[in-house]
Formats: sequence, structure tokens, C-alpha cells
Amino acid sequence: MERIVYLDGQFINESEAKVSIFDRGFLFGDAVYEVTAVLDGKLVENEGHMVRLQRSCNELQISLPVTTEEITTIQKSLIEKNNLNEGGIYLQVSRGSAGDRDFGYPSGIKPTLVLFTQARSLLDTPKAVKGMKVITIEDIRWKRRDIKTVGLLAPCMAKQAAIDAKVDDAWLVEDGYITEGSSNNAYIVTQEGVLVTRPLSNDILHGITRKALLELAEKEKITIEERLFTVAEAYKASEAFVSSATTFVWPVVEIDGRTIGAGAPGQVANKLRKIYIELAKATAE
Amino acid sequence: MERIVYLDGQFINESEAKVSIFDRGFLFGDAVYEVTAVLDGKLVENEGHMVRLQRSCNELQISLPVTTEEITTIQKSLIEKNNLNEGGIYLQVSRGSAGDRDFGYPSGIKPTLVLFTQARSLLDTPKAVKGMKVITIEDIRWKRRDIKTVGLLAPCMAKQAAIDAKVDDAWLVEDGYITEGSSNNAYIVTQEGVLVTRPLSNDILHGITRKALLELAEKEKITIEERLFTVAEAYKASEAFVSSATTFVWPVVEIDGRTIGAGAPGQVANKLRKIYIELAKATAE
Repeated sequence: MERIVYLDGQFINESEAKVSIFDRGFLFGDAVYEVTAVLDGKLVENEGHMVRLQRSCNELQISLPVTTEEITTIQKSLIEKNNLNEGGIYLQVSRGSAGDRDFGYPSGIKPTLVLFTQARSLLDTPKAVKGMKVITIEDIRWKRRDIKTVGLLAPCMAKQAAIDAKVDDAWLVEDGYITEGSSNNAYIVTQEGVLVTRPLSNDILHGITRKALLELAEKEKITIEERLFTVAEAYKASEAFVSSATTFVWPVVEIDGRTIGAGAPGQVANKLRKIYIELAKATAE
Repeated sequence: MERIVYLDGQFINESEAKVSIFDRGFLFGDAVYEVTAVLDGKLVENEGHMVRLQRSCNELQISLPVTTEEITTIQKSLIEKNNLNEGGIYLQVSRGSAGDRDFGYPSGIKPTLVLFTQARSLLDTPKAVKGMKVITIEDIRWKRRDIKTVGLLAPCMAKQAAIDAKVDDAWLVEDGYITEGSSNNAYIVTQEGVLVTRPLSNDILHGITRKALLELAEKEKITIEERLFTVAEAYKASEAFVSSATTFVWPVVEIDGRTIGAGAPGQVANKLRKIYIELAKATAE
């Protein structure tokens, strides 16, 4: 059965959802996006995603064609129309089509708004139980990774390199330091039990889940260091894991073929995943 | 009157040319492009563009859905159907749509091929006569600028910054050195008459026009240095200019508010523009 998707004011069959070849999302990657997790048919931390969406738009001078409140109404309609219980809702806003191709921002055009659902098991997933294997590769992305744009070819190449290497994901490395995963924030736990993750800057995405996890970790009295960490430090960590909107927390048990800790999900990752999911379920709406 | 454009095997009205919202060009910037100039209704240096297109596709493991010979036939049909005498033909190949969104490259899907014409004066342009004013801004693009992908948001931002500053374009700067313009290669001529441009690497686009210009300059006994040059060196140059497929050569007469040389198009730029256009006309087909 076809999904019902949202495109510029209309709920339509996914096979009918098309945009102009002049849409700047298609011609220039001139678009931003968000993915909100859905648990029990409810939106997880959606307010954070809407705030970040607005920030991405502001950075690029894209005006949202509808309010974030209206977007939330659309998201809830899509959940209902597609009977979505668990998974995610993808949302993309492009600058729209000016009917031709020119680099500068055209004025007076209406941004394109697209949303669609993706049904997927988020709670009961093998990766959460077994952990992921990752490789490290050079971070070749642009320098404004804090803006959540669809210019995602470098992360696609990284993910494909992981698939080709028969592992689950890639961690990106710049000047010897891990920046983040191909589509998630990266963390290690040192042998001393300190949770280390890269501080916010233009170098990484400002993860909504990352923010919540650090608050939870603080409540759990886990020592947190927001600082750069090297690949060598990651190899020697007692634990490693990633976070994102739809993975929540996934442990990393192997990096570049080297076993991390005991080679199984660690207790900090397991604990954070458990209490984050409790929070997500309790606050979903 | 509407343009006739090409999309996946069909010649259709531009207003009807649409791609799926799941097209990876739209979702990930997972697409490459080329622009070929048209003079007197003929394609300029198209073979070079086809070779580069094939290279971009190879780097990303995208298979062209038709041969480059067939693309040339499509280009010629578009010139005829749109009565195009002067301008350009834009061509984009995306990895296509897998019907959903996932970072890794899907297998067994057909790439999307789009071409459209853009009528524009290339020979008789004010920029060639008066020269351009540019500003310098930080080069925030990804590290594979040799692959001609549609992940062009950074160049769009640069171009918009130039428009906001009431100048014509932006030159991009990395570690103090000019890489290139927002959508063209950059050159200076020193006070000693040496033509300086950045050498080929992953840092810049391997311009088809750039290659031809350097060959022409060599025949003209102009001393060429392919090396990095700084912003300070550009300020002190006797001439500056850019090259691209559809501008050919455009002189630069002001950088960051500083007058370059005599503040008018220099003789090296004028000469190279003249003999490049002669070559382009003579070899167009």
C-alpha cells in the first residue's frame, strides 16, 4: 500500500509526489531537513526539531511556508493517515523553484515543503543489542555542519564506504579527531568512566538527542567532558556509542577492526539508551 | 513560450518536468552536472564536458543511463527544439529514486537524467567589457571540489553574499589562498606579467575552459605559474580574471574594494577572451 505523503499543502500518494526539476533542493542542495522519531504513534522531542529547523532556515534566509505549529499538525495527520506506530517522520524545506537556475537566492518564491513517514522498529533493534561496527574515514564535508542541509553526499559516501567494508557505519575524522558519525553524534567512555563527546561548533550537528543525553548523564552523575577526542583515544575507550533522533543510542563495539571494551554494548550506553527511551516515551506527544 | 526540456527519455514542457521527492538529487544532493556553452547554435567544447561528466559519475559510482554520444544527440535536439542560438545547456544526472530515503547507495535503480537550455548573451556581455567586482570570503565547501556535484549551497551562499555586498561575485579563500570563484576558476597576472592560477587538485574544479586557456596562453608565450596565490598577492596583481564554460573569460577589476591594475579589463584577459572565443567558435559542433 502506498504511503500518504505531504507536499506543499496536499496529502497525496507517494508515487504522485513530485517537485519541479527547477526546485533548488534538486539543483543546488538548497534545502534543510529534520527527522522526528515516532513512538507509540507520538512525536519524540519534536519541539527541539522545530527549533533547529527554524535555526537552519534562518541561517540560509529560507522562510518556512507554514508555521512550526502547522508543521506539527501535518506530522500528526501523517501519523494517522499512515497508521504509523513506530519509525520517523522526514521533513524537508527547500528554497523552492524560481523556474530557472541561478546561484543567487531568488526573491518572492515559495519554499517547497515535503514530509513523509518511515515505519521502522526503533526500540527492538539488533544494533541496540549487539552494537555496531564502524570504520573511521576522513571527514570531507563542508564547514557548516551545524546547518542541517540536504547536501549529504559526503555522508552518503561515508555510509557506502562502511557498507563496502562490511561494517555498519563510519566515524568521520578531521585533523586526527573524530567529528561525528555519518548521521549521528559520536561518544566514547574512557577507562576512567568519563563520557567524552565533541563540543558544539560549526563542525558537528547540534543533536537534539545529544542534548537530552548529556542532561540525563549529568543527572546520573556521569562525568562529562565536552572536548575533542582522537581516533587513538577511541580505540582505547571502554565504551563507544552514537546518538541520533531515530537510533536514540546505539553502542559501538568495534572501530577499524579493533574491539572496544569487552566487544559488547557497555553499561553507560545501555543505561543512557534505557533512560532516554523512558524520557522519549514519557514526553512524546 | 515554455522551454522544451529533457527528462528521462522524454522531451516535455518545462512546467511538466518533475522528479520524485525520493530522487536522491533532491534528498541528498546525490547528483552531478555539467553546463555546455552554445554559440551559433553549436556546442562548445562538449567533448571535454562529457569526459568530466563520466569522471564525476565514476567517482560516485553513478552509471550514466545513456551514453555520452546519446547525451550529445539530446543536447542537439534541445538546441533545435528551443531555437537556441546562444547560451548554455544544463545537464544533471542524479543517482535516481529508490522510493525511500537511506544514506547508502541503492542498487538496481535508474539514474535520473535532466537537460534544459538557458538562452543568454555570452559574447556581448557588459561584464566582459567593464569587468567584475568581487569580494573574498571563506571557502567552506567540501573537500572534493573536483567532483562536479549539485551540492552547491556554499557557492550559492557565496554568490548571495556578493549580491548583498553589491558586487558581482565572490572569490573563495582557504588558509589565506584563493581557491576559485563561486562558479569559475580564478587567475591573476602579476606585475611581471606572469599568469598565475591554482594547480589542479581536489581543491578546485578541473575547468574545461581553464585547460584550453592555459594551452592558448602557452602558445601566446605568456609565462604561466600553476601555484597557490594569496589574497594579498591578488590585491597587488596587474590583472585578474575568471573563466568558466559560459563566461569564457571575465576580467576582474576590483577585489574587496581595491582596484586591480588600472581598474579596467587588462590586456592578458582581453587577449585570452578574444582567442578563446575564436577557438570556441571554430571548434563548436
